[in-house]
Amino acid sequence: MRKILLAHGSGGEETHRLIKEVFLRYFSNEYLNELEDSARLPSPRRLAYTTDAFTVSPIFFPGGDIGKLAVAGTVNDLAVSGAKPLYIALSFIIEEGLSVDELERVVRSASEEAKRSGVLVVAGDTKVVPKGQADKLYIGASGIGEVVYEGLSSRNLSEGDVIIVSGSVGEHGACILALREGLDFELPLVSDCRSLWGMIERLISSGVQLKAMRDATRGGLSGVLNEWATASGVDIELEEESIPVKDAVRGLCELLGFEPLHLASEGVAVIAVSPEDAERALGILRETPEGAEARIIGRVIGKGEGRVLLRTPYGVSRILEPPSGELLPRIC
Amino acid sequence: MRKILLAHGSGGEETHRLIKEVFLRYFSNEYLNELEDSARLPSPRRLAYTTDAFTVSPIFFPGGDIGKLAVAGTVNDLAVSGAKPLYIALSFIIEEGLSVDELERVVRSASEEAKRSGVLVVAGDTKVVPKGQADKLYIGASGIGEVVYEGLSSRNLSEGDVIIVSGSVGEHGACILALREGLDFELPLVSDCRSLWGMIERLISSGVQLKAMRDATRGGLSGVLNEWATASGVDIELEEESIPVKDAVRGLCELLGFEPLHLASEGVAVIAVSPEDAERALGILRETPEGAEARIIGRVIGKGEGRVLLRTPYGVSRILEPPSGELLPRIC
Repeated sequence: MRKILLAHGSGGEETHRLIKEVFLRYFSNEYLNELEDSARLPSPRRLAYTTDAFTVSPIFFPGGDIGKLAVAGTVNDLAVSGAKPLYIALSFIIEEGLSVDELERVVRSASEEAKRSGVLVVAGDTKVVPKGQADKLYIGASGIGEVVYEGLSSRNLSEGDVIIVSGSVGEHGACILALREGLDFELPLVSDCRSLWGMIERLISSGVQLKAMRDATRGGLSGVLNEWATASGVDIELEEESIPVKDAVRGLCELLGFEPLHLASEGVAVIAVSPEDAERALGILRETPEGAEARIIGRVIGKGEGRVLLRTPYGVSRILEPPSGELLPRIC
Repeated sequence: MRKILLAHGSGGEETHRLIKEVFLRYFSNEYLNELEDSARLPSPRRLAYTTDAFTVSPIFFPGGDIGKLAVAGTVNDLAVSGAKPLYIALSFIIEEGLSVDELERVVRSASEEAKRSGVLVVAGDTKVVPKGQADKLYIGASGIGEVVYEGLSSRNLSEGDVIIVSGSVGEHGACILALREGLDFELPLVSDCRSLWGMIERLISSGVQLKAMRDATRGGLSGVLNEWATASGVDIELEEESIPVKDAVRGLCELLGFEPLHLASEGVAVIAVSPEDAERALGILRETPEGAEARIIGRVIGKGEGRVLLRTPYGVSRILEPPSGELLPRIC
C-alpha cells in the first residue's frame, strides 16, 4: 500500500504527481486545472466568504469522513448566511505515512459532496508533516458564495420570533463520541453530516421572512441559541419535548453525562422566522429530504438578559446554559 | 503564563473569550466583527482566490513568524496572479499547551503584515488539538483579490522573453535550514518573508507587458522555471552568475549539500516579460524597496523540451533539474 511521504509535500515532482493523480482526478474543473497560484473566477455580485479548519478524529466515521465534512461544513456556513455556495478551496495537512488510499477516499468523498451542492473546488494546497506532528489529516477549508438573501443576523431576533430546527440534533457529536469511547457497536449512531444548500435554497426562494440562521455545529443547539439571545438582547423559551433528539443520542448522553443540546450537528439548521411565516417555513422545510423532520421548538419571549429557557412537560423552566469547558475536542 | 487549553477550541465560552481577547483585538474590522458564519463583502469585478496551509517549523524565525508568513504568502499568491489582495481568512490549528503569548505574537504580526498591503482579515476559525497531535501551530490561509492584470500564465512564455528575479533567492529556506541544524549563530541568515503587492502594483500600473509571474516558494527558483518551461514547451537559459544568491546562503548550501536554486524564497517574484519591456520593468522594480536588487537572469531560448539550462561563466551549460525528494519539510 502506497504511503504519503515527506517528499509529497515538498513542492517538487512528487507533489505534482500527487496533485495530478489524486486531487485533479476528483476535483478537476477549468479553474483548478490552471494550477496557478490563484484561481481566477467570475465574480458574484455580493460576496460571502467563510473558513474553517477540520481536525475531526477519527477521519472516517459512520455517515461521512473529514473530506465530506469539510465541504458540507463550508457549504453550510455559506448557506446559513443566505449565500449560494460557489467555490471552495482546500488545504491539506497530511501526516507522513498516511496511506494514499485513505487520502484518495477522503478526496473522492469531498468531490462528491461538492457536486451535490454544485460548488467547485478551485484552489488547493498540500503539506506533509513528519510522523507525530499531526494525526493523519487536517483540512483547512474556505468557501465563497453569492449572497442571495440579505440581512440574516444574530442580532435580528425580536419578541414573537419562532425558532425552528430542521432535524434532530446532536447526532454528529454523539457519533464521534461513541466511536472514541468504543460504544459504536452498541449504539446505532450515524453522523448527520450533509450539505444544507438544497433545503435552504427552497426556503429562501419561497419568500418567507428569515431573521437568523445557523448550523448547529460546535456548541450544538445551545451554542447557537445562547449566542442569538445574547446578541439580540432577548430571552428565548424552548419547549423541551418539542426538540427532536434521537433515542440513541439521548442514551449515550445519559451514559456519559453529556447534554444532548450541547452536542454538534453537522446537517441541522437552526432558523428564526417571523411568527406569521413560521408555519409556511416549516411546511417548506418538511418537503425537503434534509428537513423532513423539521420542528418548531420555541420562540423569543421578549427583551431580556440573553437567557435560553427550557420549559419541561411539567411546566417548570430551567436555564439552558451555554456550552463551556472541554466538551469534545476534534469533533469537526 | 497562560496556555491554550482544549476548551479554547470547543466553540463554547472559552472560544468566544479567546476570539475577543486575541483575534478581534488585532484583526478587528466591520466584516469580521459581525462574527457570523460567513463574512458578507463588497464584491470585486473579477475574482482571484487562493489557499495555502502553513506548517513552518520553528514558528518564529529571523525575519518573521508563521503569522507574517501566512499573510505575506497569501498576499503574494494573489499579487503574482495579477490581483490586488482584498480579503484574507485564517484558520488556526493550535496544539494544546501553546502559550497565549506566543499565539498573540503570531496574530499581531499577521495583522501588521495585513495592514502593510491593505488587506482585511474577514473570517477565521480556531481548533485546538491535544498535545502531540500538532507541532505548536498550523495556519490554513486563503485570500480573495480583484484581478487587475489579466492573462498571466505559466503557458505564456515564448522565444526571447526575459526572466527577472526581484531579489536574491533562497533566503527563507536557508534561514529555516540553519535554525534546524543549529547553525543560526554562525550564519547571518534572515528570511526574506515579505508582502510583494506594493512592488507588483507599481509594475502592473506601469503598463509593461508581463507574461508570467510567480513567487519562488517551495521548490525555489528552479521549481518555478521548470514548471514554466514544461507548461510553455520552451527551454530557458539562465546566466548562473547573474542570479543573486547571498554568501551566507551559498555557504550553508555548500556545507549541507543543497542547491540554492531549490531553496524557498518568501519575498521574491520571478517575472517573465517581453524583451522590449525588460529594461523598463527592471527599472521600475529597482525603484521599490522589495525589488531594489532585481536582476535579469536569463531568457527563453525557444521552443524546447521544457529544460532550464544554467550557463556558467566558463561558457558551458548544465541542466537545472526540477526539485524532487524530501528537500525540507515544514519550510512554509
